[in-house]
Amino acid sequence: MSEAREKAALAKQAAQIMNRMTTEQKNQALLAMAEALIEQQESIIAANALDIERGRSNGTSESLLDRLKLTPARIQGIAEGLRQVEALPDPTGLTLESFQRPNGLRVEKIAVPLGVIGMIYEARPNVTVDAAGLCLKTGNAVVLRGGSAALESNRRIVEVLRGTLAGSSLPADALQLIEDPSRASVDEMLKLNGLLDVVIPRGGASLIRTVVENATVPVIETGAGICHTFVDESAGYDMAADIAFNAKVQRPSVCNSMETLLMHETFAGKHLRALADRFLAAGVELRGCERTRAIVPEAAAATEADYATEYSDYILNIRVVDHLDEALEHIARYGTMHSECIVTEDDGNAAAFMQRVDAAAVYRNASTRFTDGFEFGFGAEIGISTQKLHARGPMGLPALTTTKFRVFGNGQIRG
Amino acid sequence: MSEAREKAALAKQAAQIMNRMTTEQKNQALLAMAEALIEQQESIIAANALDIERGRSNGTSESLLDRLKLTPARIQGIAEGLRQVEALPDPTGLTLESFQRPNGLRVEKIAVPLGVIGMIYEARPNVTVDAAGLCLKTGNAVVLRGGSAALESNRRIVEVLRGTLAGSSLPADALQLIEDPSRASVDEMLKLNGLLDVVIPRGGASLIRTVVENATVPVIETGAGICHTFVDESAGYDMAADIAFNAKVQRPSVCNSMETLLMHETFAGKHLRALADRFLAAGVELRGCERTRAIVPEAAAATEADYATEYSDYILNIRVVDHLDEALEHIARYGTMHSECIVTEDDGNAAAFMQRVDAAAVYRNASTRFTDGFEFGFGAEIGISTQKLHARGPMGLPALTTTKFRVFGNGQIRG
Repeated sequence: MSEAREKAALAKQAAQIMNRMTTEQKNQALLAMAEALIEQQESIIAANALDIERGRSNGTSESLLDRLKLTPARIQGIAEGLRQVEALPDPTGLTLESFQRPNGLRVEKIAVPLGVIGMIYEARPNVTVDAAGLCLKTGNAVVLRGGSAALESNRRIVEVLRGTLAGSSLPADALQLIEDPSRASVDEMLKLNGLLDVVIPRGGASLIRTVVENATVPVIETGAGICHTFVDESAGYDMAADIAFNAKVQRPSVCNSMETLLMHETFAGKHLRALADRFLAAGVELRGCERTRAIVPEAAAATEADYATEYSDYILNIRVVDHLDEALEHIARYGTMHSECIVTEDDGNAAAFMQRVDAAAVYRNASTRFTDGFEFGFGAEIGISTQKLHARGPMGLPALTTTKFRVFGNGQIRG
Repeated sequence: MSEAREKAALAKQAAQIMNRMTTEQKNQALLAMAEALIEQQESIIAANALDIERGRSNGTSESLLDRLKLTPARIQGIAEGLRQVEALPDPTGLTLESFQRPNGLRVEKIAVPLGVIGMIYEARPNVTVDAAGLCLKTGNAVVLRGGSAALESNRRIVEVLRGTLAGSSLPADALQLIEDPSRASVDEMLKLNGLLDVVIPRGGASLIRTVVENATVPVIETGAGICHTFVDESAGYDMAADIAFNAKVQRPSVCNSMETLLMHETFAGKHLRALADRFLAAGVELRGCERTRAIVPEAAAATEADYATEYSDYILNIRVVDHLDEALEHIARYGTMHSECIVTEDDGNAAAFMQRVDAAAVYRNASTRFTDGFEFGFGAEIGISTQKLHARGPMGLPALTTTKFRVFGNGQIRG
């Protein structure tokens, strides 16, 4: 039996115990996990140093190594994340609906754990702890498959956390790490119907595509974000410039940052030059349509491929449009249904944009950077769903539950 | 371009118009559709006669031909179904959550149409109308791919309905029928990411498996039902016998009927013989474990394969167990997470069963046959989901919606 199948089977057994754990039992385990990470941080940092060393000798970029690196401060932050999850309300066991049928049947719809969650992710070892905390809090078992670059770190972290679970009410087998760094272990996970209830990929576009194309297990697609800001003719310069600048520059590497700025020609005629200067001064590389380049010759010519790329970097496409409809068509064509913004003082344009754009989050006069579980007040986030089934947008704890109908009768049969 | 891709692309364009239709516009179209079916029933029945004729010459069984057959009374019933959907509340446009963040952002979570729904189903032409009505009512476009046995009927029905849409506010292209009867058209549909937002298969286990194994588009798995009734030692004979008999015999062909009866040994010792006689008298073929056969020698030996089969027929497995845990293990192993029942007078056993069984619907002292959108009071049903994501159990209109966050700001940027 493969490692993936074996560990998923252990997780499935554990899920049947997890399902019965009380909120208090789960919370105690989360606090113990946080404490253990801090107490055993030296061994975690030592394991992490092996990953860093191997990464450096493989020629991994310093920026990637920085994302991989664990320090006492970062471990403190990760442990704090567990404590925050501990403090959140437990969504399982809640009665979501309850009604009585004319034949006397009483029907209750209850939130219950999903069962076994598979998480496939890339470099950062903090995801290992975050995912474990969120899945266990919601009564699930979890099978983690992190990136090979963080293997030593993840192995040690999971060892510490499983050691803690062994001393708690929760079954240690509810937390599994697949250590096989080959692509084969991912392919295997994606077909574990009957063992995994869902697979959640977190990472770049290529990982997401691999998962969507190969999984027979249900998937929650996350993360890919080609987000737009459309500035219409009624927008004031200061607000439009601040929102666009923030959406691109504040943190370009994340999925809710802007990749393409769309602008009504009237606004562009008045303000594009000044706004372009602000981006250029911040070191943003500009690519533009013909009308943009007539005003901003520093911009390279934007191609179809550029409009379809999630740069996650200091690169921005700018396109001037004739009217709202052209902006809507552009977004429908190139967007990934993540986050889209209109900057406008016109209520009609705002209403049309917010109804017609098909995305997880649509904004009027605010940066797309707010699409985030913490910013929405969910207290935690397992990812941002860009699909339409089950959960859409930032996923808090309730996204890790499903429902069950409990039906109480006294002998009812169907006539 | 293949027929499937071409029609899905038309549906996607139409979805952008459907999304803006008011409840009144949609309801008017539904009523007109109902009327048109009745007015043009002769042409529909004539087309149906071609399907019946072809089926008969292909050696299709009379029971299948009966399911395929359309009569004035059945068309009346189908039209009535559309009128019932018309009368249901429109779930789209509802504000599901609304909150203000400390930074002043106002966030609304709104129910919106899924977009384009692909339906893949088998013989019965009534599904063509039901699916069209449910999808259009919820503001979606729909691409139908019915079974080849009903092709002439489906073609004529869709022609009639599209003709009606052309005279309504709704775009006719919101309703598409794929006419290619080959497996290739199904395979093509399953990969139409970006055009179809979801595929819902309705039919036998083999159709469902094909869809789950090959789809890259998100799927809502429906229907396969290996359902159990467990009679514990505290159950009274009359209630237990009535519930078990109803679950098996009232309509064996449907997914919520019982395939295996599990029975505590104490109850079996007292009552199995009488209960078996009742099943035998109704013409039910029995297959049993060793202990069952010691009491009911008429029963054949039940195999592993029997326990894993959805008979949809007058065949029943009976297994005697030592205790609740053994019943739970059996259900976890062979069940399809559809509907499971315990007949008991013991509150502790009932609570344990209802918490620990992982299924869409769990029953105490009522027949599993109640797992149904109409019986639950949803007024309509697109299918019964046996998966855990998005919708679980009977799916009413809200299962055909997703959500969108609308965020209103006045210049907020992220710090």
